[in-house]
Amino acid sequence: MIPYGGRVKAVERFLEAAVYGYIADKEEYLRRLRRIEGQLRGLQRMVEEERYCIDILTQVTAATKALHAVALGLLEGHIGSCVADAVAAGGPEGRDKVKEAADAIGRLLQA
Amino acid sequence: MIPYGGRVKAVERFLEAAVYGYIADKEEYLRRLRRIEGQLRGLQRMVEEERYCIDILTQVTAATKALHAVALGLLEGHIGSCVADAVAAGGPEGRDKVKEAADAIGRLLQA
Amino acid sequence: MIPYGGRVKAVERFLEAAVYGYIADKEEYLRRLRRIEGQLRGLQRMVEEERYCIDILTQVTAATKALHAVALGLLEGHIGSCVADAVAAGGPEGRDKVKEAADAIGRLLQA
Amino acid sequence: MIPYGGRVKAVERFLEAAVYGYIADKEEYLRRLRRIEGQLRGLQRMVEEERYCIDILTQVTAATKALHAVALGLLEGHIGSCVADAVAAGGPEGRDKVKEAADAIGRLLQA
Repeated sequence: MIPYGGRVKAVERFLEAAVYGYIADKEEYLRRLRRIEGQLRGLQRMVEEERYCIDILTQVTAATKALHAVALGLLEGHIGSCVADAVAAGGPEGRDKVKEAADAIGRLLQA
Repeated sequence: MIPYGGRVKAVERFLEAAVYGYIADKEEYLRRLRRIEGQLRGLQRMVEEERYCIDILTQVTAATKALHAVALGLLEGHIGSCVADAVAAGGPEGRDKVKEAADAIGRLLQA
Repeated sequence: MIPYGGRVKAVERFLEAAVYGYIADKEEYLRRLRRIEGQLRGLQRMVEEERYCIDILTQVTAATKALHAVALGLLEGHIGSCVADAVAAGGPEGRDKVKEAADAIGRLLQA
Repeated sequence: MIPYGGRVKAVERFLEAAVYGYIADKEEYLRRLRRIEGQLRGLQRMVEEERYCIDILTQVTAATKALHAVALGLLEGHIGSCVADAVAAGGPEGRDKVKEAADAIGRLLQA
């Protein structure tokens, strides 16, 4: 039988695992996504007003940069929590989580 | 004094220059940008609902891909109209327009 | 029959078209590519010496950046010569050249 | 004084840490890097022979893609070994390793 301390530890791990890396900064992520949503509305205004192509492109690039920053933040949180926990727990799940994260980075590079 | 034919030509050029490459597809660009704006709202819902990091990342990647497609469309229109016209007209303005477009591509690559 | 001046013009265009945008800077491009080739040899040495992953990654990133700079230079030269000439000449070839360049940019973005 | 078991553990960790994620596939990485080095020599030949800009660009894109694949492999190995070990060991070093990996991904995205 697992001693009391061990069970508390196990429950703690379970609760931690349920809390993804980004949740602690949830409000910050929502704020950033709302800001990018605003950039998308600004882009629509620029197209409506028939603004110069390169000026629109510059804003598209700014929105892309902001999305990349969100992606990097999510990845950092994910690697530091879900992935690290899974690798520490040992077994094939750790390898799977690492592969899943690397695949996500690969898709982002090719977006 | 510029002869009549020359003035007609100049007015034509001015009107062409005022119509940027993307304007013919203005509604299509607005539709695409509205769709990406919707993806940004979807992302906020995912964060609110504390969805799995990798699922959120997948959506961030999809929005980035859609923004890149908009950027490529704008570039194609821009090169085929503003840049080509400026180069055809000769003089330093052509070189400047090519440089401006290349710089925009460079910033997009590094976004 | 095409008058003499027109034929000279046509021959000039042909010769220009045969000289791609990058040829004027051929030596500079060769120098840059040799340098990236050297970075690739340096990377092999780092792997042989079992250097730290992140240090190797930093060098891979530097080589990628240098390749992107070469690509941007080629694109700038290409748009300012082949593409602009084809658009100026009018007809469907201009549109094709613009499309070809935009596709190349798209592939580079997704590399 | 650290008990015997603790010291064995510490030595094991040190040895593990010395074996980076990519070492198991060292020959594969060397083979891939040699291949990209060959692509760089091929690019020099193309420039010497004054080949068409877009054909050269296509090869630059292929080399970039191959470098990205190497980078992703290195990252996957790194996250699954160095980063995961550091996070599992607890303390600030884990957070530092995650940050270091995220920064490397960020630099790669902006290359």
